[in-house]
Amino acid sequence: MKNTFGNNVTITLFGESHGKAIGCVLDGIAPGVTIDEDFIKNQLSLRRPVGKISTPRSEEDKFQILSGVFQGKTTGTPIAIVIPNEDTHSKDYDKVSSVARPGHADFTAEAKYHGFQDFRGGGHFSGRITAALVAGGAVAAMALKAKGIEIGTHIAEIGGIKDDDFGDLVKDIKSLNQKEFAVLNDSRGEEIKEKILKVRAEGDSIGGILETAIVGLPAGVGEPWFDSVESMLSHALFSIPAVKGVEFGLGFGFATLKGSEANDVFYCKDGKVLTKTNNNGGINGGITNGMPLIFRAVIKPTPTISLEQQTVDYKTLENAVIEGKGRHDPCIVHRARVVVDSVTALCLLDMLTGRFGTDWVVK
Amino acid sequence: MKNTFGNNVTITLFGESHGKAIGCVLDGIAPGVTIDEDFIKNQLSLRRPVGKISTPRSEEDKFQILSGVFQGKTTGTPIAIVIPNEDTHSKDYDKVSSVARPGHADFTAEAKYHGFQDFRGGGHFSGRITAALVAGGAVAAMALKAKGIEIGTHIAEIGGIKDDDFGDLVKDIKSLNQKEFAVLNDSRGEEIKEKILKVRAEGDSIGGILETAIVGLPAGVGEPWFDSVESMLSHALFSIPAVKGVEFGLGFGFATLKGSEANDVFYCKDGKVLTKTNNNGGINGGITNGMPLIFRAVIKPTPTISLEQQTVDYKTLENAVIEGKGRHDPCIVHRARVVVDSVTALCLLDMLTGRFGTDWVVK
Amino acid sequence: MKNTFGNNVTITLFGESHGKAIGCVLDGIAPGVTIDEDFIKNQLSLRRPVGKISTPRSEEDKFQILSGVFQGKTTGTPIAIVIPNEDTHSKDYDKVSSVARPGHADFTAEAKYHGFQDFRGGGHFSGRITAALVAGGAVAAMALKAKGIEIGTHIAEIGGIKDDDFGDLVKDIKSLNQKEFAVLNDSRGEEIKEKILKVRAEGDSIGGILETAIVGLPAGVGEPWFDSVESMLSHALFSIPAVKGVEFGLGFGFATLKGSEANDVFYCKDGKVLTKTNNNGGINGGITNGMPLIFRAVIKPTPTISLEQQTVDYKTLENAVIEGKGRHDPCIVHRARVVVDSVTALCLLDMLTGRFGTDWVVK
Amino acid sequence: MKNTFGNNVTITLFGESHGKAIGCVLDGIAPGVTIDEDFIKNQLSLRRPVGKISTPRSEEDKFQILSGVFQGKTTGTPIAIVIPNEDTHSKDYDKVSSVARPGHADFTAEAKYHGFQDFRGGGHFSGRITAALVAGGAVAAMALKAKGIEIGTHIAEIGGIKDDDFGDLVKDIKSLNQKEFAVLNDSRGEEIKEKILKVRAEGDSIGGILETAIVGLPAGVGEPWFDSVESMLSHALFSIPAVKGVEFGLGFGFATLKGSEANDVFYCKDGKVLTKTNNNGGINGGITNGMPLIFRAVIKPTPTISLEQQTVDYKTLENAVIEGKGRHDPCIVHRARVVVDSVTALCLLDMLTGRFGTDWVVK
Repeated sequence: MKNTFGNNVTITLFGESHGKAIGCVLDGIAPGVTIDEDFIKNQLSLRRPVGKISTPRSEEDKFQILSGVFQGKTTGTPIAIVIPNEDTHSKDYDKVSSVARPGHADFTAEAKYHGFQDFRGGGHFSGRITAALVAGGAVAAMALKAKGIEIGTHIAEIGGIKDDDFGDLVKDIKSLNQKEFAVLNDSRGEEIKEKILKVRAEGDSIGGILETAIVGLPAGVGEPWFDSVESMLSHALFSIPAVKGVEFGLGFGFATLKGSEANDVFYCKDGKVLTKTNNNGGINGGITNGMPLIFRAVIKPTPTISLEQQTVDYKTLENAVIEGKGRHDPCIVHRARVVVDSVTALCLLDMLTGRFGTDWVVK
Repeated sequence: MKNTFGNNVTITLFGESHGKAIGCVLDGIAPGVTIDEDFIKNQLSLRRPVGKISTPRSEEDKFQILSGVFQGKTTGTPIAIVIPNEDTHSKDYDKVSSVARPGHADFTAEAKYHGFQDFRGGGHFSGRITAALVAGGAVAAMALKAKGIEIGTHIAEIGGIKDDDFGDLVKDIKSLNQKEFAVLNDSRGEEIKEKILKVRAEGDSIGGILETAIVGLPAGVGEPWFDSVESMLSHALFSIPAVKGVEFGLGFGFATLKGSEANDVFYCKDGKVLTKTNNNGGINGGITNGMPLIFRAVIKPTPTISLEQQTVDYKTLENAVIEGKGRHDPCIVHRARVVVDSVTALCLLDMLTGRFGTDWVVK
Repeated sequence: MKNTFGNNVTITLFGESHGKAIGCVLDGIAPGVTIDEDFIKNQLSLRRPVGKISTPRSEEDKFQILSGVFQGKTTGTPIAIVIPNEDTHSKDYDKVSSVARPGHADFTAEAKYHGFQDFRGGGHFSGRITAALVAGGAVAAMALKAKGIEIGTHIAEIGGIKDDDFGDLVKDIKSLNQKEFAVLNDSRGEEIKEKILKVRAEGDSIGGILETAIVGLPAGVGEPWFDSVESMLSHALFSIPAVKGVEFGLGFGFATLKGSEANDVFYCKDGKVLTKTNNNGGINGGITNGMPLIFRAVIKPTPTISLEQQTVDYKTLENAVIEGKGRHDPCIVHRARVVVDSVTALCLLDMLTGRFGTDWVVK
Repeated sequence: MKNTFGNNVTITLFGESHGKAIGCVLDGIAPGVTIDEDFIKNQLSLRRPVGKISTPRSEEDKFQILSGVFQGKTTGTPIAIVIPNEDTHSKDYDKVSSVARPGHADFTAEAKYHGFQDFRGGGHFSGRITAALVAGGAVAAMALKAKGIEIGTHIAEIGGIKDDDFGDLVKDIKSLNQKEFAVLNDSRGEEIKEKILKVRAEGDSIGGILETAIVGLPAGVGEPWFDSVESMLSHALFSIPAVKGVEFGLGFGFATLKGSEANDVFYCKDGKVLTKTNNNGGINGGITNGMPLIFRAVIKPTPTISLEQQTVDYKTLENAVIEGKGRHDPCIVHRARVVVDSVTALCLLDMLTGRFGTDWVVK
């Protein structure tokens, strides 16, 4: 379905980095969800560059809700959100360039769109488009919150420096969602920021890992084949540029474990079925078991760097050299965090709506 | 879409472990693809238990193609494949059991299906259903082969013992596809088998990692948002029971790399654009770049073990104890390999057909 | 989606007229629906040829449910139903024929499948495939009945002879569903049968109109754009071979009416909103208004006739002559009636499940 | 899929009659299609009210293409088009009204959206939303024209007054597409206009029939089951408000014909397979046969009339009386014509793109 995700609640993305606007259309959101525009604004601000550790390009992302919200609540009809592009520096792109930036989609865009793609600033492949994803995800998050479902993501690791592990999830999620730089251990956060500044000084960039927890989900959501919770979430997560790996619960750690160590033993408490460990990240057989959902996503280092790189001109098919001159981020892991939260919210709302019907939220 | 995967070429799965039959319906396969039933038979045999390192349950998976193939070639209409269940030991399940096996979907099935699920042998969640997936994947693989696209998977690691890395991919894929136990280094393979036997003797099970390579794909396949190659493949892979992590190229290894180390530098050779390294696993911006596709999937240890485990009875909501008595696999990594190949073939054929039209294969 | 219909409850069809079997896979049906195999058998018998007014080909349509039903109830997982082909007279088709039968899909199948289609007896285009549709529709109808929704279709007209109009819908639907030849006025039914026999004697065939009513539907089902009730139902109905027109309520009769005559005036009775007339067939703005759903579908005369017809050989591109020798129906309107009921049941169950969630039926 | 139509080329609609803007997102359009904004403007003008025979509300429908078009050509990425609402007379709706207008979706919207719908001017159900559909359809039409496929619709009948039948289709289509009031016989057109004025003077409204022809389609497009050309087109057509019937070729006329009269006899001419008649409207077995596509859609009389009507208040559940005071159209058949053309273009482009791949237009 190309630029649309979801079966019951869908998001359709549009826009190019240097076009008139980017945006999204959400469909299938239940009627009656209260929309707090300040929450959307706040989510968008978390995606924006943070101080010295990010690119200087810094638009305020003034969004406009064109439809689907009436008297402060969702109507149940499509919600279109538009974010005009303002700070586009179009002169940077006056000359058509067909020199492919390594690690970027310049060459693959040419292979797919035969030269008709908008090549300015990454066009439709630009990370800028994630602002529309975040605006849409914020709406989904408001629907989930109304039912007691909360999502939080922390920077588990950047450049080898690790944050603390999750502890009390309800508390941690609350705390993370009030932080601009999402770490559980703030002094570790300072180390990470220093690392990023060091890498930036070298003209280079650095990758990392984000870890997400969701509390409040009922058991019984997901499908045994193809639309397992892992399938749906990974589908959503891998559409975020730079995500190159996704794991649930212990993930790749399962490779060296025995069944007796890996299995989450069930027990009953107050008439509820719980597990003593949560190695499976809240999912058995592709379906939620009522324990918190836990997953991790790796974010590769930003491909744009200031160092000189060998490459090719995809029009002339000659070798070429490129040096990053424009604005760029030495690290996007901390900015990607709210994008991960957003696609997670969209994906879960989609699955819950399929399970419980279109009025689920207001019932 | 529940038990259906794909947009242009779809597979729909059906069946329960102890029902009359399992099977699949493939739709959207181009007309004119030559169907070699021996190839399907061989793929099915790779999924079946292997000697002492597997479960003694061993049906021959006699499949029947009910439709969509005429005079040895696909017709372009739906291909239904049915595999009757034979060796079902139904007496093992005479008593209704509501004691949840840890790590299995017994409890989540109850949460989802309210007691109406076929609980015998895992029912619709059983790994047995993957036989139908393999039969369908074999058909997809024949279509891809006709266009020069080949898929191969090796056991990268089981219980900490690692196989060699991929070398010459075309050669390695060819070699792997002739092996029952898919390792590049056969003596390492023997070590792994010993490890599995040791774990089995302990009444326990063990996990591992599979690594897959695909050669022959054109550049320009995939979508920038939501239906990226990573999104589609991970969606397919995470529907395989026991897969808990998926990574492309360097995957989680990107977390500690710098951009200058991670970027794949382009160069031209004989009028073709290539990359010197393939850290991104053949994908930039969600779209194939013409280099081999590389990904890894982690398989958790089989949840069924002979050791006693604490658990609950999900009907009475009382704590309980379970001891695995039935047949079970100490390791399924080697058996999962052909399932990974199968969903990969289905997913790629789907994306290629969308890109190039329904006649793509015979054009 | 080719051979799959539905968003929330899907049916996937497979099979060819002279292949091994035809069948369907239903997915998304709620768990816990009681399955009465005799009802399926009865629905299939209504599709079968009736006495002298139909083709002598008369298989009993022995179906087998392969999955998704356990202990007499749906499990919530895919339901595969297979109907083996028995009475196929394969010798009739020993010689490959590329002479296109006028009004049939022989030529269009060639254009679409490039000669790889199974040409025997219409292959995948054969009306025989509707047996699988009827089996699947019967399952959907049982789910609807459990919620008080009933569907009935009568032969409104064949060859110019008209049945009575619908009167008391609840009574009429009950009565029609007990009749083999679905007319409200049985003496008119005899006239129609005589007409069919007369046409048959001429070596010709005849068309007609079916009219369907559904009672028990709640208000508020359907979507304003694209997935209106009319859109979804017509999509389903036009996939029945020979249907060439569909109209809701007064349908084409609206062309000569004024708004003051066409509008259905609302009134309240016992706290319920009703309309005095039902010109709109129970649908306003694409959404059910709680009144009975009413629509009509025209069935063209069977293209197969005994008379000589001019045509072409699509391989040699030469003009040719064809004379129908095989078994054929002088009229299929009365047999199509249960197919209309079936796709209606599937379509409504799909929309209701999307609206109310996957457990809707058992809640 | 709610407000999205299409499998390969999709359109997603959004907006309410009195919200900030309406619009659409098109996805899957091939890269490289030349976009003529004047053509879009012209198509939008055909939907707008015409002189005295329409509502006085008359916005210019200033659209803006936000994405997906670069240097005058499509890029292959989503095309978002926004049309701001200007002439909304919001004061007309100062008071919340829960008196249901007969024939409108006021009551069904309440049943579906539980009071959260934007009730002003029909909200998301308003015919105004079709402006976005027309803008999107214009883009699709440009892609089809580039491949020699042309669509034309005439007013076959309004209030019992009939236009001439189609003659030379290529000429007729060309001629119709240059006319504001789409009749083949202009003097008959004047009679129709007089009829409309007369009905308007009575405070009433009137319905009619539109007939559409498409030339230039290749044979072999469509699917045998579920996604037949008739299924897909009727799905699209029935989402246009006021369409209550759709028929292909002779449509309901088939009810009284014999097979020998109805069958379209094939013949060969210059190496092409043609039919002598076109009773089936260019479709056999759900698939195009290369002859022109012909279908008809009935448009019911506008529900809004000036006459007093009985109705209910859906909040208080009391009977009420309503008198249309606002602006309204005595007839929308002539305005609906370009909406029919638009959904037809979208639907055909979708099917052709699925058949021939995403680059079909520029290949």
